[in-house]
Amino acid sequence: MTPSDWDSRPEDEAFREIGYAFVDLMAEYMKGLEGRRVYGPVSPAGLDSLFNEDLPEDSQGWDQLIDECRSKIFPNSMAIGSRRYFGMMNPAPLPIAIFADALCSAMNQNAASWRHAPAATAVEKRVVRWFCDLFGLGDESFGTLVPGGSFANITGLKLALNKSLDRDIGTWDESNSPHFAEMAKLRIYVSDQAHYSFRKAVDILGLCHGQLNKLPVDHLYRIDVEKLENAIKEDIANGLKPCCIVGIAGTTNTGSIDKLDLLADLSEKYNCWYHVDAAYGGAVMLSDKYRHMLDGIQRADSITVDPHKWFYTPFEAGGILVKDGDFLRKGFLVRPEYYMEKSEADERSFHHGDKVNFFQYGISGSRRFNALKLWMTMKMVGRNKYAEWIEKDIELARVLAGLLQQTDEFELTGPNTLGICTFRWVPDSSLSDEDIDQLNRDLQTVVEREGDAWFSHTTLQGQVTLRVNVENRHMERSDILRLLNVLKKTARKLKG
Amino acid sequence: MTPSDWDSRPEDEAFREIGYAFVDLMAEYMKGLEGRRVYGPVSPAGLDSLFNEDLPEDSQGWDQLIDECRSKIFPNSMAIGSRRYFGMMNPAPLPIAIFADALCSAMNQNAASWRHAPAATAVEKRVVRWFCDLFGLGDESFGTLVPGGSFANITGLKLALNKSLDRDIGTWDESNSPHFAEMAKLRIYVSDQAHYSFRKAVDILGLCHGQLNKLPVDHLYRIDVEKLENAIKEDIANGLKPCCIVGIAGTTNTGSIDKLDLLADLSEKYNCWYHVDAAYGGAVMLSDKYRHMLDGIQRADSITVDPHKWFYTPFEAGGILVKDGDFLRKGFLVRPEYYMEKSEADERSFHHGDKVNFFQYGISGSRRFNALKLWMTMKMVGRNKYAEWIEKDIELARVLAGLLQQTDEFELTGPNTLGICTFRWVPDSSLSDEDIDQLNRDLQTVVEREGDAWFSHTTLQGQVTLRVNVENRHMERSDILRLLNVLKKTARKLKG
Repeated sequence: MTPSDWDSRPEDEAFREIGYAFVDLMAEYMKGLEGRRVYGPVSPAGLDSLFNEDLPEDSQGWDQLIDECRSKIFPNSMAIGSRRYFGMMNPAPLPIAIFADALCSAMNQNAASWRHAPAATAVEKRVVRWFCDLFGLGDESFGTLVPGGSFANITGLKLALNKSLDRDIGTWDESNSPHFAEMAKLRIYVSDQAHYSFRKAVDILGLCHGQLNKLPVDHLYRIDVEKLENAIKEDIANGLKPCCIVGIAGTTNTGSIDKLDLLADLSEKYNCWYHVDAAYGGAVMLSDKYRHMLDGIQRADSITVDPHKWFYTPFEAGGILVKDGDFLRKGFLVRPEYYMEKSEADERSFHHGDKVNFFQYGISGSRRFNALKLWMTMKMVGRNKYAEWIEKDIELARVLAGLLQQTDEFELTGPNTLGICTFRWVPDSSLSDEDIDQLNRDLQTVVEREGDAWFSHTTLQGQVTLRVNVENRHMERSDILRLLNVLKKTARKLKG
Repeated sequence: MTPSDWDSRPEDEAFREIGYAFVDLMAEYMKGLEGRRVYGPVSPAGLDSLFNEDLPEDSQGWDQLIDECRSKIFPNSMAIGSRRYFGMMNPAPLPIAIFADALCSAMNQNAASWRHAPAATAVEKRVVRWFCDLFGLGDESFGTLVPGGSFANITGLKLALNKSLDRDIGTWDESNSPHFAEMAKLRIYVSDQAHYSFRKAVDILGLCHGQLNKLPVDHLYRIDVEKLENAIKEDIANGLKPCCIVGIAGTTNTGSIDKLDLLADLSEKYNCWYHVDAAYGGAVMLSDKYRHMLDGIQRADSITVDPHKWFYTPFEAGGILVKDGDFLRKGFLVRPEYYMEKSEADERSFHHGDKVNFFQYGISGSRRFNALKLWMTMKMVGRNKYAEWIEKDIELARVLAGLLQQTDEFELTGPNTLGICTFRWVPDSSLSDEDIDQLNRDLQTVVEREGDAWFSHTTLQGQVTLRVNVENRHMERSDILRLLNVLKKTARKLKG
């Protein structure tokens, strides 16, 4: 058997050979994560040359591809999964999810419709039900998996527009209708800590950016509820139409959680759609200890979840959950003839019935059996173990905060609500803000270049701040102490 | 080592154990495809019960999950990859792509920005370049991978709107601007064979359905170019604004290809954005023999590709290619502070430069290193082998057409342009159209239920027609003969 036999028939022998080789390659990669730089000595221009080849005319062996992974791809990748990676909500992925992704691709089901993928549809319904139950959305709720939080936020805002305009995909038939004038009046409210997907969403949905009102936050980076209500009143006075209030359960910068109950009150009072972006923070619903942080989320009309963040599954796995599942369906109900739905059957195909076509619940057409990795991962891990991991991530971020507070030169800049710790290096308080900004950027750059750890910087209140995110079930207190040493050592060097 | 050790450290031993077990499971599944029914004895309601369990509290072993795959998932799934599956453009996936999907998940790179995923970004740039070169889009072209054709079509239409309205995400700032009145005037043209994603797209982008003008087709199911031009002239006379002409390179129903060169002429003449949906047919560009079928596609402003169709990669893998790559970027250019871009650097980050952030080229935010499976698959297969497979798929569809023509009771209903053969069973020409429709539905249902093959039915010219799609590199003439026997045997039984 040589690698050139890769497509022989019967497939099983060749298939096993390439499969085992890739398992070994992945094991080698993962085992090597702790021994290597977190981030390679990267020159993007150099990388372009490294991969500069035309589409090959002839077949190559897969052994050559494995060599290229070792020599070109691995050294120039971020060591996600390393206990020295404190990055952007990207978890050290679970092995079961990795192989579920392969099995999904081997089966290659089209989870667009139940008739083409019966088991895939049933499993996705089950996973959606788990999420709806987790957030307490009630029996009429339903949802769909999407590639990620950005798509979920677009979907949530689309439903908000549909509600305000009293439209759905079936009725939105007339052109030149007065709805364009109505659209111009809509207003969507969110804090200035909102994910950039909201800016993209209003643009894609045909609105202008001015229609997304980004409101100031309080000292814990939560939306200022009083200013929000004033903005709504002012808009109404100006003849505009409040359409949607967005609550954030775990901001990207600081992991802050808006006062979800108060936002629910305002949404009811002003007849707004209530969307909660729980892409990051939603996972705390798994924890008895921290679930209360999201009180009020059960009152949301739609919720963005993003299991490829704190549910420890690899990219891509997002979802949108909607309190009125039927309204979601009405928003995307198309009926192509080649899906062979009979109209009688369709009447029964609501999500409580037995025949669900997921392409009728969202933007997607053909879609992979992505629910498989969530179903397997959530069954294998179970809620208790998840809670344990999430609680430990939060605790470790707080351990770091406590240690930094004991130093003279690091100042905390955020609330440390979830698994994120933000802080600023201030070696000398007589320095200008601009100089301190630059020193913090430099500190991040040096750590990145030397490869002993990886974290990012961001901007809070106009100031550059460092950002550490703990999301690794194998991380321990010793990893936090090591990070602190890297920070101190690098600071000394920069002062030197 | 027991399955309960699944998350021990160091990971490599447990990781290899679960990995090998899943490779064996996939091999077992794939080897079993030919010996089983193509489609299980499905009752969706029964399936719901089968998977009815709450989110488990405690961890389960992965050996139990493997059992559940065997007992619950496999028997209730469509046998994609079987040589008796003649379905919906879902290829028998290539092993290399299956394991590339696992490796992608093991590395879990966030291919949103080059800084977080240098190699992933370089590889995606390379793959996008291959596609742009394949379609002859020129040096200024660029694009991005997307989850599938629906997202690509939305992106193409969004760019068309931006062009017509002279807007991009950076300038679309004013609310209550006159652009809503302008939006109401826009018109998009496509044939009535268009994929349902266009209906979704206009709805999502804020337009009304009446603004999507679906035009009649000729006898080969290609858009009627004369009627198209008349419609455009009429709209202009009515004060409306032609915005976008969509050409289809491979319709879902029949694989028909619009006259792409003539549509390019019209797009130029009427200053329309020219989008080509090549989700299915784009792959013929790989074949010297059939490339001419898409003449004119190089003149498109944007092209939808969908490698999870005829490039033999598993779900999900789509892409959008844009002649003016810079215009694509302007359409999605957001700059969140936590991605740490310096503005100077950003000026160099155009796709010809070294620093590309793919989240600035499309709807997606965080995104998986999906380019890995395309890069590996395309390198391993090579253009010549791809061409061979595609040419054989087309030939086999024509073999079936030829055999059906020799029968008394089957009539061809489509052009057999690509790997699709559409036909209608007409056992007795004195029957009413409705009766013949029902007989064709029955024939499909019986074959599906008995599990000897799987194909779909659709509607052409108001009549139910059967649809066979060949997309399996292992399929041979004998598989077509077997299918013909299934058709004849089932027809006899129904006449019985």
